[in-house]
Amino acid sequence: TMEQLVADMQPADLAEFIQEHPVDINLKLLSCLPIKQRAETFGYFSENDQRELAEHMDESTLANLFIHMNSDERADLFNLLEEELKADLMRRLARNEREDLRRLSSYEEGTAGSIMTSDYVAVPAQSSVAQAFDIVRSTAPDAETIYDIYSIDHMGRLMGATSLREMILARTTARMDALMTTELISATVDTPQEEVAKLISRYDLLALPIIDNDARLVGIVTYDDAMDVAEQEATEDIHKGASVGRLDDGFGRARLRDLYRTRIVWLVLLVFGNIFSGMGIALFETTIAAHVALVFFLPLLIGSGGNAGAQASTLMVRGIATGDVGVSDWARLLGRELLVAGALGLTMALAVSPIGFWRGGEEIAFIVGTAMISVVVLGSLIGICLPFILNHLGWDPATASAPLVTTLIDAAGVILYFSIAAAVLDLPGLF
Amino acid sequence: TMEQLVADMQPADLAEFIQEHPVDINLKLLSCLPIKQRAETFGYFSENDQRELAEHMDESTLANLFIHMNSDERADLFNLLEEELKADLMRRLARNEREDLRRLSSYEEGTAGSIMTSDYVAVPAQSSVAQAFDIVRSTAPDAETIYDIYSIDHMGRLMGATSLREMILARTTARMDALMTTELISATVDTPQEEVAKLISRYDLLALPIIDNDARLVGIVTYDDAMDVAEQEATEDIHKGASVGRLDDGFGRARLRDLYRTRIVWLVLLVFGNIFSGMGIALFETTIAAHVALVFFLPLLIGSGGNAGAQASTLMVRGIATGDVGVSDWARLLGRELLVAGALGLTMALAVSPIGFWRGGEEIAFIVGTAMISVVVLGSLIGICLPFILNHLGWDPATASAPLVTTLIDAAGVILYFSIAAAVLDLPGLF
Ligand SMILES: [Mg+2]
Ligand SMILES: [Mg+2]
Ligand SMILES: [Mg+2]
Ligand SMILES: [Mg+2]
Ligand SMILES: [Mg+2]
Ligand SMILES: [Mg+2]
Ligand SMILES: [Mg+2]
Ligand SMILES: [Mg+2]
Ligand SMILES: [Mg+2]
Ligand SMILES: [Mg+2]
Ligand SMILES: [Mg+2]
Ligand SMILES: [Mg+2]
Ligand SMILES: [Mg+2]
Repeated sequence: TMEQLVADMQPADLAEFIQEHPVDINLKLLSCLPIKQRAETFGYFSENDQRELAEHMDESTLANLFIHMNSDERADLFNLLEEELKADLMRRLARNEREDLRRLSSYEEGTAGSIMTSDYVAVPAQSSVAQAFDIVRSTAPDAETIYDIYSIDHMGRLMGATSLREMILARTTARMDALMTTELISATVDTPQEEVAKLISRYDLLALPIIDNDARLVGIVTYDDAMDVAEQEATEDIHKGASVGRLDDGFGRARLRDLYRTRIVWLVLLVFGNIFSGMGIALFETTIAAHVALVFFLPLLIGSGGNAGAQASTLMVRGIATGDVGVSDWARLLGRELLVAGALGLTMALAVSPIGFWRGGEEIAFIVGTAMISVVVLGSLIGICLPFILNHLGWDPATASAPLVTTLIDAAGVILYFSIAAAVLDLPGLF
Repeated sequence: TMEQLVADMQPADLAEFIQEHPVDINLKLLSCLPIKQRAETFGYFSENDQRELAEHMDESTLANLFIHMNSDERADLFNLLEEELKADLMRRLARNEREDLRRLSSYEEGTAGSIMTSDYVAVPAQSSVAQAFDIVRSTAPDAETIYDIYSIDHMGRLMGATSLREMILARTTARMDALMTTELISATVDTPQEEVAKLISRYDLLALPIIDNDARLVGIVTYDDAMDVAEQEATEDIHKGASVGRLDDGFGRARLRDLYRTRIVWLVLLVFGNIFSGMGIALFETTIAAHVALVFFLPLLIGSGGNAGAQASTLMVRGIATGDVGVSDWARLLGRELLVAGALGLTMALAVSPIGFWRGGEEIAFIVGTAMISVVVLGSLIGICLPFILNHLGWDPATASAPLVTTLIDAAGVILYFSIAAAVLDLPGLF
């Protein structure tokens, strides 16, 4: 039967299946699901769909859904709703649920607090393993994970953590505070979510405990949400790397005006950057008029500088993002880049000089070769330094996008190329 | 004391700390650690360091380390060693360990088999919860996770899975085959690791069971390794997006010749792409000689086309990688891109036409505006289509890097721009 089929489906698949349909069908399909499964499936919908569906539900249905959602997903949904609906929902919740929701929904987007859940298992540090097991059993149906058990003191402060594995292997009379790890990895509510994901990945944690400013345990971030954050942050960096702004929905479902908005800003800014290249060219109009053949090599030279620069900045930006490269590495990486860029420039010069010779003889071959080495080395150095400088200024290094680096190098490359040409050909130059 | 300090350190931190030192110090530091911790720490070293350290250890020390490593990390290390050392190690292992290692190390890099571990908990499907608990307790010290328990039949075929949470909540007399989920997400040994990571992330799994061609359970991939794969694949795509080839180490620790090798190939290929732009320019030398002022706008126009194209291709490549965009979406996305690119091109034309007017009057303003719209629309369409075409040809869509798209659009942009100019200014053009 239909019910049987749907009961066996994974929430992620169910959400994808339901999302295809118009709102009224969505609501009918959702209402067929048992409430637990309905709440779980709802958590997999996109923000836009969640908001739309919530606004079309009658209030008691919404309140019921609300009560059965995970506390972290509930807080996210809450923040999407209009003030009036929020107030109404708050009234329908029990007092402790209301407090929990108010707290979880109050943290700024992008912080640990905004992605943590309050559905964890905590036990008094002085309880025995048997007592802890009783608490685990009674919280198991609602907790997001019962595999890490946190020990707290009478003030609610985080004292240590014990894995369920250790509890199963221990004697039931052992005390939790003897069993627990006290060398604990944790974060505070305002730690950036990116940091949280990195900690979970680095230490292979199932969940990261989150404490408030008084060291009280207030939530956990689970590994599955950390994976989502890591994917989201990687997408953000990839988009920034092509000078695309922040896109909340995926590309496939994004609205036209969001696509326009996220792309136009940098496109226009970069046009003004390109005007410098144009001005560089204008400065050398006499050189160009005397040797129109020089223009043949212009795209090739500035293109190569831009490509080498984009490579260097991309390697650097990703290195900083994954923590593979630190700020203290700067001098070493710059020195290394000089060597690599020198070798790259030399190879490129050897590749293009013959073409220079073919189009204009020895002099042009020399100009093109020299310009190639200079432009590749200069481009690579800009590519390495820019992310560091941005980082130092407190900007996101990912702003050092390939297009930005390319535009900078284009302008520098024009000046370099024509200056070398003017000097070698004994034409009036800049200097 | 030093021992106390080191005993409390996380293996990831310990590995980072030890890695800083020369090989002989590394070996001494490692030998101070209790064998379990030593084996775990060793798994966090980079491939190059693992190989180097292993080759400097005496064989019985290495064999001891080997026995205590997780089965997946052990197989990875084994594959790094020289044939002679491999044979020697094999001789020192017990028969079942040897079989296990031979199997795990035999799968091709990049497949589920190559990242799975054989340290999982499996129970006969007909056992009771109490019996299953006994098996869990006896395997707990060696298993990578005991939180998903797999039920198998007498042939070793995967029948279902039960979480430890469900087992704890169930009566001890219940049968595992009544408790287990049979609607199971699983993969085969040759599923690409990228797919494995996606499944684990999509379904929020702690571990994904891996079966062989006879549906027998042969391993699991754990969430922590899936996080590493996802990060690695994102880095690979980001590097490809800037035409940097595959780099096995992180950028910070990469060797000079690897950096050179991964960057030079595309740089040289793209130079030859740029020659087409140069040839395009050469075709219009008379147009240029008559109106040198046109060159002023060249970087700006082809730059903007390239930037818009890089945005489109990057959005598309990432959309395909995250599964947000499917091949069936092609026509819809192309239509949408036409609208967005039209709006972008129009905005850009309005931004640059005044500059055209200022530098050369009405005609130049018209030429620059028209060329801008055409080049942005053309660039965006190339950016959307190229990843799809590559995907269709069985190539990695991430090969549609910003530099490749930019180079293609540069050449097309030159022709477009000067053709429009020649037509408007009534100069000899191409057609
Ligand atoms: Mg939130
Ligand atoms: Mg990890
Ligand atoms: Mg969650
Ligand atoms: Mg989730
Ligand atoms: Mg970031
Ligand atoms: Mg961010
Ligand atoms: Mg360019
Ligand atoms: Mg492997
Ligand atoms: Mg997930
Ligand atoms: Mg592993
Ligand atoms: Mg690992
Ligand atoms: Mg890939
Ligand atoms: Mg790959």
